Parts: sequence; C-alpha cells; structure tokens
Amino acid sequence: MAEENKSSLDPLAALCKRRGFIYHSSEIYGGMPGFWDYGPLGCELKQNVKQAWWQFTVRGREDVAGLDATIIMHPKIWKASGHLDTFADPMTMCKQCKKLMRADQIDDIRAELGKKAAAVNPAYALSCPHCGGEMTEPKPFNLMFKTVVGPIDDPSNVAYLRPETAQAIFAQFTNVLSTSRQQVPFGIAQMGKSFRNEVTPRNYTFRSREFEQMELEFFIRPDEAVEILHGHVVTLADNPDLNGPVQDDWGWEVWHKYWVEQRKKFLNAVGLPTEHFVEYWQKPDELAHYARACVDIEYDFPFGRQELEGIAARSDFDLTQHQKHSGESQMVFDDPLKQAAKKLDDAARKAFIEKVQADWVSRGKDPIAAEKFCLNLFDGKYVPHVIEPSAGVDRLMLALLCEAYEEQKLTDEKGKEDIRTVLHFHPKVAPVKVAVFPLVKKDEACFNMAREIFDKLRKKVNCFWDASGQIGRRYRRQDEAGTPWCITVDPESPKDGKFTVRDRDSMQQERMTYEEFLVKMYAALEF
Amino acid sequence: MAEENKSSLDPLAALCKRRGFIYHSSEIYGGMPGFWDYGPLGCELKQNVKQAWWQFTVRGREDVAGLDATIIMHPKIWKASGHLDTFADPMTMCKQCKKLMRADQIDDIRAELGKKAAAVNPAYALSCPHCGGEMTEPKPFNLMFKTVVGPIDDPSNVAYLRPETAQAIFAQFTNVLSTSRQQVPFGIAQMGKSFRNEVTPRNYTFRSREFEQMELEFFIRPDEAVEILHGHVVTLADNPDLNGPVQDDWGWEVWHKYWVEQRKKFLNAVGLPTEHFVEYWQKPDELAHYARACVDIEYDFPFGRQELEGIAARSDFDLTQHQKHSGESQMVFDDPLKQAAKKLDDAARKAFIEKVQADWVSRGKDPIAAEKFCLNLFDGKYVPHVIEPSAGVDRLMLALLCEAYEEQKLTDEKGKEDIRTVLHFHPKVAPVKVAVFPLVKKDEACFNMAREIFDKLRKKVNCFWDASGQIGRRYRRQDEAGTPWCITVDPESPKDGKFTVRDRDSMQQERMTYEEFLVKMYAALEF
Repeated sequence: MAEENKSSLDPLAALCKRRGFIYHSSEIYGGMPGFWDYGPLGCELKQNVKQAWWQFTVRGREDVAGLDATIIMHPKIWKASGHLDTFADPMTMCKQCKKLMRADQIDDIRAELGKKAAAVNPAYALSCPHCGGEMTEPKPFNLMFKTVVGPIDDPSNVAYLRPETAQAIFAQFTNVLSTSRQQVPFGIAQMGKSFRNEVTPRNYTFRSREFEQMELEFFIRPDEAVEILHGHVVTLADNPDLNGPVQDDWGWEVWHKYWVEQRKKFLNAVGLPTEHFVEYWQKPDELAHYARACVDIEYDFPFGRQELEGIAARSDFDLTQHQKHSGESQMVFDDPLKQAAKKLDDAARKAFIEKVQADWVSRGKDPIAAEKFCLNLFDGKYVPHVIEPSAGVDRLMLALLCEAYEEQKLTDEKGKEDIRTVLHFHPKVAPVKVAVFPLVKKDEACFNMAREIFDKLRKKVNCFWDASGQIGRRYRRQDEAGTPWCITVDPESPKDGKFTVRDRDSMQQERMTYEEFLVKMYAALEF
Repeated sequence: MAEENKSSLDPLAALCKRRGFIYHSSEIYGGMPGFWDYGPLGCELKQNVKQAWWQFTVRGREDVAGLDATIIMHPKIWKASGHLDTFADPMTMCKQCKKLMRADQIDDIRAELGKKAAAVNPAYALSCPHCGGEMTEPKPFNLMFKTVVGPIDDPSNVAYLRPETAQAIFAQFTNVLSTSRQQVPFGIAQMGKSFRNEVTPRNYTFRSREFEQMELEFFIRPDEAVEILHGHVVTLADNPDLNGPVQDDWGWEVWHKYWVEQRKKFLNAVGLPTEHFVEYWQKPDELAHYARACVDIEYDFPFGRQELEGIAARSDFDLTQHQKHSGESQMVFDDPLKQAAKKLDDAARKAFIEKVQADWVSRGKDPIAAEKFCLNLFDGKYVPHVIEPSAGVDRLMLALLCEAYEEQKLTDEKGKEDIRTVLHFHPKVAPVKVAVFPLVKKDEACFNMAREIFDKLRKKVNCFWDASGQIGRRYRRQDEAGTPWCITVDPESPKDGKFTVRDRDSMQQERMTYEEFLVKMYAALEF
C-alpha cells in the first residue's frame, strides 16, 4: 500500500463497496453494527483464502486431519474452556448521560472525541468522556451470544454460539484420534464461523461480531515423554532445522517455533511478505496462566498495528479441562513411549520422577501430580500438549486488501497524468484469475477464439468475460478487481494461435499460446 | 445401495462413525440432539459437494454472482419474509405426563410407539400417545433461534439466527445488482449455515437444528415484460430447448423448468442418477400463496422418501415484501424494455393494460395494481420475479452416502466368501481421490518412486499415503473411504516408469504412466 493511503481505510472501503467485495449486512434496513457481508468478488476472495489455508494446513500434510463441527455445542464445553466464567469485557454506564461503555476503552473514547471530550472529573475513578458524569462500577459482560435449544425456554436449555472454533477440536479429539489413523504428534484443523458479542465492533471488518476462523490444534508429546523416548529433548538452543521434515525428538519450544515459521510461510505464499508484518513474542506477564509461549503476528492496518493471528503453546490445559468436566479420559496411549519406558530400571525411573518433580515444583506445580504424571508416562499414557496457530479469515482478507491496494500515478506518452487503482493480489487469492477479451467484438473468428479460450479456462479457474468497451478500460476494470492476467484475442490470433497476456502489476503484454499461458498460470497457483 | 440395506441406516451410520465421516456434536458431553459434526473424511466430502455446487452454479456460468452474508441479520428481514409471524410448528403438551409434542406429529409418534402407544381417548381432540392424557390446545412455536445483539438485553435488541440463506440474497439484491455488472435475468447464489430449532430433530443428519444450504435466487423479468420486449412469451407448450443456451423470450414457466433440469444435471454430475430420485410437482393446493410452481426432488432414504431439494417459482413476493418493509425500491431499470415499450402507441398500451388486468383479475389480483404495474413496465421498471433452486448440503451428503454404500459379497478363487464394504462415490465428491502405496516398503527405489508420485499428486488433489500392511487390506480401507483410485508402485515400476491403478468399483487393475493417470483422473474430476 502506498504511504499516502496508509492513514485511511476510506478509499479501500469505497472500492470494496463499489466493486462488490464488502457490504454492510442488512444495509437496506439500516445495517447491523459489527456484521458485514461479502459480495461477488469478496466471497471469491474469501473462498480462495480458506482453500489456500486448507491446502497448506491439511491436504498438503500427512499429520493434520480436518473437522467441521457445529456452531452451537454443548454448554458444558464453555464451562470447561473457561469462556462461561471469564470471557467477558468490563462494562460501565454513565449515571448522568446513560451511555454504556467498556471500562477499558474509556481512555480511547476520550482520545477519539479529542477536544469534544469532557474533562476528567477527579471526584470519580472513572468519569464519562462524553459528559464528565460518574460511571457505574464496571461489571463483567460475557461476550458469548446466548440462545435456547428446543421448545422450552428454560435456563437448562441455554446454549451459546461458539466464540472460537478451537474448542470443538478439543471436544472431538478422541473421536478424530480413534477414526483417522493419526498418532501424536498430529493436528486437527477447522475453519468456520465464530461469534462474539463485541460491545464496540470497529475498524471495518477487523473486529466484527460474526467472523470466520481458521484454527489448528497440533497435539504433541509432553517434553517428559520425548525425554523418555530419546534420552534428550531438542530445544531452540540446539538450533534445529525448522525447514526440513519434523523430528520426533523436538520439545514443545521447537514445535511452537516450527508453527510460527509455517504460518509465516503461509502468509508469504498468499501475498504478505515477511517484512510487512511483525512477529511479537508475548512477555511472560502477558501470557495466559496455562500458556508457555505465544506469538502474535501483527500487521500495520491503516487504523494501527493489530493482531492478524496468534500461535500459542497452550500446554495440556484444554484437554485436561475437558477430561475433568466430561469425565471422559483424554489420554492417548503411545506404544513407542511404553516400550522405551520398559527399558528404564527402577533407579532410572526414580531419578526421572525426581527430576520431573523438581522441574514442576520450580514452575509452581504439585510434586504429587508430577509423580502420577510420570507413572502414567511409564505406562505410555499422557494428555497431549498443544500448539495452536489461530487465524482470522476476515482480518487476513482485510490485510490482503490493504496490502494489495494501490493508487498508481501514471503518465502517458503525451505527459497526461492519470490514476490507476489496482489490487495487487497474489494470484492464489485473486477472486478472478483471468479475464478474456475479444479485441474486436464484430470479428467473428476473433470473437469465437476468445470464447473458446474462455470456455476452456473457466472449467479450471474463475474467469471473467468482457467483450465491450475500449480495451484500456477493460484492463482498468480488472485492475480494480485484482485480476492477475487479461487475455486479449486480436484479429491476428486465429492465424498464429497466439494471444496477448497482459500482466496486472507490470502492465507488460506478451504474446503466447494457450498451452504457454496454462503453464504460466499453474506455476503461480500451485503451492 | 443394495436392497437388503435399504431398511436401515445403521450399517452406514456405523461406517460413518468408524471412518470419521460423522460424529455426534459434543459427544463427550452426551451429545446435542439435532447437531452433528463432520470428521476428517466427512468435512472433505462436504467441501467437495459445496465446491461442485459453486462451480456448477456460479463459476461455470456468467449469469450468476456469489454472496456470503452473515447468519445474524437485521430482525426486520424476518418480519418482511414472514418467518417471524408464520415460521412455527404447533406445539402441545400432555396435561397428565407433561410430555411436549408437535401436534402434527402425534399420529406419527403413536405409530412409532406401536403396541406401546396409549389408546386414543375419544374424550379429547388430541390424546397423548404416551399415556392417553388430555393435550393442551396447540400453540405456535417459532423455529427461529433467538439471541440478543449488544450489551443490553432488551426486546429491541433481539435478533435471530437465519432459518434460511435465501433472505440475505433478497436483502442484498440491490447491492449486488449495482456492483456486479449483472442484469436481469441473472442469479445470486449463496452457501452457508442455517438454523432451525426443530422440536423433534431426527433421521440422522437429515433433519438437524444446524445445517448448511446452497441456495440460488435467479431473478427474471415478469412475463408481461417479456411480452412487451418480444411480442410473445415462450411457455412449456412451445417445447423450448432447455439444453441449449438460455433465451431472452422465455417466460417464468420455462425458466422454472430450466432450473429443474439444471438441478437434475447437477445431481447426476455428483453421482445421483436420475432414475434414483423422484421429481414431484406440487399440486396447486400444496403451493404457498405466492408460489406459481414448486418441484421437490425426493430421494428414497432408508427412513422413507424425503425432499432433497426444491425448485420454486416465487413470483415477485420476496423482493416486494422487502421493498415494503425497508422502504427501499427493489425495482430494476431495464433499458431494452423501455425502448421496446416506446414503440407501442397509445392504443397498443391501452390494449396491453387491459389484457394484463384481465389476467390479474383471473388470478384474484387487483386491477388497479395491474395498471400501475404496466405503467412502470412502459418506463422500463419492475420488481423481478424469482426462481429459487434451494438445496441442503447435509441431506445431499446423506443421499450420496446412502447411494454410495454397498456391502458386496465376494467369492475368491478358493470359493471363500467375503464381504467388501465400499462407498461408490463419484470421484468429484470422493473425500480422498487417490491413495498411493509402495508395494514393498523396504525396496528403496519402489518406496521413493511412490513417495515422489504422492508428493506430486497431493499438490493437485487430496491424497492418502499408506505404506504398511498387506496390499489387499490397504485396498479395502480405501474402499470404505470411497477412494476411487489406488496407485501401487511395485519393484518393476522404477524400471518401466509404470504403476498399477486399481479401480475401486470394478477392482480391475491397469498399469499406466503418471501422465496417463493424470489424464484419466482429470477427465473424471472436471465438470
């Protein structure tokens, strides 16, 4: 994105509306704050982003299985995950002007209001930025959307729209494990809608109440199991090769870093170069209590630097919680581990237990639980730990749109200046891959050849046909849609079997055959 | 499906669980009635069904644009569509045993209970099939899931989970029209989740509370506009060619039948032969008041004949309702129509109006509205009519599973009998397209060649690698997953560059090169 556009989303949002990428939900009824619809080009972009993620994360790997679970799940899942008790924002209301606000956003609201903001009233801990009045004591407001399942409107039938896709993966862990021939280390991936009743949805599609996620839970052995199996655990200090095949002796730290690198590779592959995002490693005091590490991948949106996705090492927290709340064991049986443990004599076992106890105690954990954990390990049993790369479809789409958007100043041979608006999408995510134009509509041979090419291509990729208007304007329309290639069939084409391929970014034109074009196109589309 | 399996879903459901097609939602918490999750194979099947529909309905056509709207929309949409007032089931409760039932299902429940059912009590209009007690007066129970948007739990913030995807298309009609370069006749298509709070979800995944739809609203000119444009309207009596390109002089009847044929073509293309489903034309007294025709495509599930999808001619009902409730015009401007109307002199206009009035009056409609409608037509303006082909993803998947399932009796050379369980999926929807096996795991050249083929193929399609166990058992595992082709690389392969391709259905094996296999595979996958 050119520097001058960085400051505002407005030109991009205008293009998104005008070209059918993004509309307000329910616009003819005045819209719904925090809800956005994707139009004809937007939904193609979205499908491409999701398919690229699925290909990269699931189909392209042998150690990840897919899942597609329901949005409404058993309410106990949210008790176990902690969402029911703690997934809340602190809400406060002004006693004077009755405005409702998030207590943690009052300073932001004051800053946004600028000179119009009321002065801080020193009499109150929180004073209203709108009128200076006294605010009520902040109360937690749970962000899950509530509903009732079945005909009886009763607290026992309350259910929630999932606020994340991840928990369904934990809830189906044992089913997937027993039906997919996977063994730890392996992952389960899911894409789908999630819902959060945000108090103040904002920043265009970035913080919406209904959004889509792409989440992977990658289950690994606890480091202690790796230790028994291999006599050592590879850590980052060992400088492991993260670009080669995964290794059985990696500890959680290496697996976590491996997935950070995988995610960066994916972002590069769909058109976000590494130098355009920031890898932020959360500080120990920022981490959730169960997390061992968390990396945020952040992008500089026009409205500020914001999290695009996160890669968290969540220990065995989630599966242990579900084991506790469901009463169903979430332990796996790891035969190689059991065989390795068999080779340890009593003294070695005792020493191992003592070592693990010392480590657990140093991390504020219970030594008796550590012993029980070790005894299970000797039996080949443990609750897997998990690395969670979690991405938002909508915010990635928004980053790709921001990244792609350019208003380019062009000067023609006569010195006339012109602005070309172009979306430089990576071909993998571009909504339309190829536009096909007959240069001269009335030249039958030229028209028919163009039509034939169009008909062949659209069986393979999403194509657009445009037979009317000046050729330059047809190119510009495709530039705005982000179409990487335009094929123009001219009166010479039926004679030499070649057509002109115009590149969106360089605007260079090259004559080639259909087969040559296919090779060029597939090379750009394949992972 | 073989005759002996027709009677029960049980063997199929067992396979679906065992091989990771379908699980109960939230199973470790005891499940949620009416909610189902798709496992690793199930979610691939689902994605393939949806992608096939999208390719056939949107990308493969120039006259259909896509949309991806939110599940939670403005509540006025459901007032306009009629769902808020009439999308309800009649509920009744037994005053004696307190059981809640759908009043229209009491006879079914009695039949299901069989001998265990209580005798009909002649004292009551409805008597409880469980205990014979008196039932309460049936009350309507709205099937939409309710929730509250924003932090204030107040009737003014109540919203609903969409019970169908169609209404979002109507609500975004003007946006799509003005941003997609489409003109009537054209369609808008959407896939996505819908929710219905069914009182008695049943028949496995067939009637669920959370499900996915694939809906197309295809907007056409009112017949009266076609009449002005062409001086005639083609009806089914004219025996139009429905397999060629669409024609500008088709009336609604032809468009409706055209979409019935298109849907049948689609079902054929994904593996449901025409002779395996029933095309049911609703009788005039079965039609909704605004509908002019409706065809149900029905499939013989093991639990009975049920609707797979419907193709309805809905007149201008939906857009007119939204025009009324939103206050936003849903009329299109049709320049060719205006130009054609200009050529009519006053007498011709008068005659036209009278003809339309007579027709409207004969259908119980208002002659003054007819006149107003004609005057708008002369100006090139009208609210489009719509043909709605509406399909359910989950029920189509279930039909494809039922259709594909076979327990085949095999007899080997020694006369030994064996059962082969196989899913005969069409390659387009099969979760795994190709499995690759090295015949001899320890033969390095053979193993490496197999691995190389696998790595090349999985960039193109979903593949499975299996290097262990007897080759016959590896084939059988793929038969159960519905994988159309297994590639076996044997010690001869590195020498002659060929491998064995085993066909799932015929179990025939054929040696070929990689390029020969690609041609075979692509031919089966392309529309």
